[in-house]
Amino acid sequence: MGYRYAAAYAGIRKQEQADIALIVSDPSAHAAAVFTTNVVEAAPVRLGRKHLKASKGRIAAVLVNAGNANCATRTGDRVAIASCKAVARALHTKPEFVFPASTGVIGVELDPRLITDAVPKLVSALSPDDFEAVARAMLTTDTRMKVASEEVAFSSGTVRVAGMTKGSGMIHPHMATTLGFILTDASVAPEALREMLASATERSYNSLSVDVDMSTNDAVVLMANGASGVKPKDKERKLLQEAITRVMENLAEQIAADGEGARKLIVVRASGFRSAEDARRVARAIANSPLVKTAIAGSDPNWGRILSAAGYSGIRFDPAQIGIDLQGVNVCRGGLAADYDEAALKQRLDESKIDVRIALAGRGKGEARFFTCDLTEGYIQINGS
Amino acid sequence: MGYRYAAAYAGIRKQEQADIALIVSDPSAHAAAVFTTNVVEAAPVRLGRKHLKASKGRIAAVLVNAGNANCATRTGDRVAIASCKAVARALHTKPEFVFPASTGVIGVELDPRLITDAVPKLVSALSPDDFEAVARAMLTTDTRMKVASEEVAFSSGTVRVAGMTKGSGMIHPHMATTLGFILTDASVAPEALREMLASATERSYNSLSVDVDMSTNDAVVLMANGASGVKPKDKERKLLQEAITRVMENLAEQIAADGEGARKLIVVRASGFRSAEDARRVARAIANSPLVKTAIAGSDPNWGRILSAAGYSGIRFDPAQIGIDLQGVNVCRGGLAADYDEAALKQRLDESKIDVRIALAGRGKGEARFFTCDLTEGYIQINGS
Repeated sequence: MGYRYAAAYAGIRKQEQADIALIVSDPSAHAAAVFTTNVVEAAPVRLGRKHLKASKGRIAAVLVNAGNANCATRTGDRVAIASCKAVARALHTKPEFVFPASTGVIGVELDPRLITDAVPKLVSALSPDDFEAVARAMLTTDTRMKVASEEVAFSSGTVRVAGMTKGSGMIHPHMATTLGFILTDASVAPEALREMLASATERSYNSLSVDVDMSTNDAVVLMANGASGVKPKDKERKLLQEAITRVMENLAEQIAADGEGARKLIVVRASGFRSAEDARRVARAIANSPLVKTAIAGSDPNWGRILSAAGYSGIRFDPAQIGIDLQGVNVCRGGLAADYDEAALKQRLDESKIDVRIALAGRGKGEARFFTCDLTEGYIQINGS
Repeated sequence: MGYRYAAAYAGIRKQEQADIALIVSDPSAHAAAVFTTNVVEAAPVRLGRKHLKASKGRIAAVLVNAGNANCATRTGDRVAIASCKAVARALHTKPEFVFPASTGVIGVELDPRLITDAVPKLVSALSPDDFEAVARAMLTTDTRMKVASEEVAFSSGTVRVAGMTKGSGMIHPHMATTLGFILTDASVAPEALREMLASATERSYNSLSVDVDMSTNDAVVLMANGASGVKPKDKERKLLQEAITRVMENLAEQIAADGEGARKLIVVRASGFRSAEDARRVARAIANSPLVKTAIAGSDPNWGRILSAAGYSGIRFDPAQIGIDLQGVNVCRGGLAADYDEAALKQRLDESKIDVRIALAGRGKGEARFFTCDLTEGYIQINGS
């Protein structure tokens, strides 16, 4: 695919486990990125944005570390700059072609020498085979690696899309503690890349929450280096867009399933509302409700909590027109309790993937889907100590 | 004070514990009320709003039950109407002078005979001394009764303000699963009462969250029956307003302290922002953050989570101008870690009342205060089973 990867232990984490990684694109790739909307931005977010602008949307290398967010520290900017310079020197490129990303604890000074010392080691270890080593190195409270890939056949050849992500807590739409790198060997102009990323983000990372917190470090980057020699024609681009969206949806679903303390992935679908935006707000209110999430943790088919959460979403609707299905079982019809076998449904709510559907009767065409997870004692234990 | 009270067990709760109560005002009181903003409204909310309109802001009796929210059921409206009629008949007044309120489970049919059978018993038991019996009868997952009172001396005599409330989970600004009844024997016109209630609500119930859920049944009612014979003059009214506000702030604080699973009351104060509304949004984002709430549960002085929550509040500010104090200890100065004794602070974070202050340096005068509680395994256990 024209990408090489390396990961190493630089001593940033306390436990000895790879905490720094490099993705290098040969040739350098066109790139687009979306960032956290938190006004408290980590130094690498500020610098990454600046570099993308200076390089006119090109990235030769991504440098990512876990274990320290390089945020709210005295030396944050200097550390990010020194790190990118070290990579640029080792790769004989300019610092603005290096994209920095960090994840981990906020407010703790990060020693830049840990990173600059590790860079030569990383560069000499680069290999096209170590995609998963990078995906593992950037994990924090995640319990598992999150990767996804697709192939798309065009008239002029086949291109690949491969994505990796991290994220488990502090997950909320508009970028929470997540990093995502989506790589393709298709050839795509920067402007088209930005559109593709925006559209796919809306359906994936922006349709996802674990808690309602949003971090200071999030970035999702889409890179296209053209190494396949395939440049999708205008009418073929939709296929590539769909592949990128599927990869990112898959990654978002993996984040929700691995939410801190989660035992269950919850997929909320809302339909029949006036617009997709209305449906999204309803689905999001349900997905964010601690009462819905704890009920599902306890396999309790408490549709009243789902109806109530929809009711405070800010969207006006007639409750008497609402139907709710859990695991395909109709539990609420016309805003009232439906007739269902509660014992059987409770058993089905023990499954690891929970399907919640809320539909407004009528002619509304607005649909949305939102990923989240159940809320268990594990979330408290992870974050309270 | 001109109010009489009674509580009884009507068989609505499973366990034998008073679940229905009556507050009667002689003479009937001027009244104002605020309700849930959830579009899914319980039948008593709809009927209460209608009765207040029909009676032109007068209430002779409040009928409240716990154990069933009388919401999202086939017979909800009929049950609420029959209940008010039964009270009106027994008290020789009109149904529109009876204000209904319910709290408890949603979506379960409520047998109206349980209520209508209990009404004569309640009426014959009315006593000026049973204020606390009513305050206890309306509790659900609350672990303790919540009452507060004040006296205000005017030139023409002394008036009293007494409030009772319930609420523990599903608590969020703009009315969550809470009921509140604030009674005074001052004489106040309905229009002035509405203003007083709106102002006091903003500083109390609308500055409070336990989780981010909002129920279908909330109502806070302010009643003034004039039984003291004291009618505050225009310039004296501010004193009454302050007393009402203090009573309602006290009740809101008690709700936060008794949040489901809570071990600690958290009071978040934001200052130095451009407006009170900006400060409120910052304080609310911090108070709603599960990561802040779990950190405090674990006595962890994690100011990075506080700064990050402020950062996604939607309010723009320069993080380098932020200072954060925990229990009076400065933990963050100029957006960076301050120098403090972490072990000593951790110990102080074991206390049952946690003081969180975030200040923006500069000339902003916007201040706000928000009540919440820590997030513990107890919340999950209560709501997940």
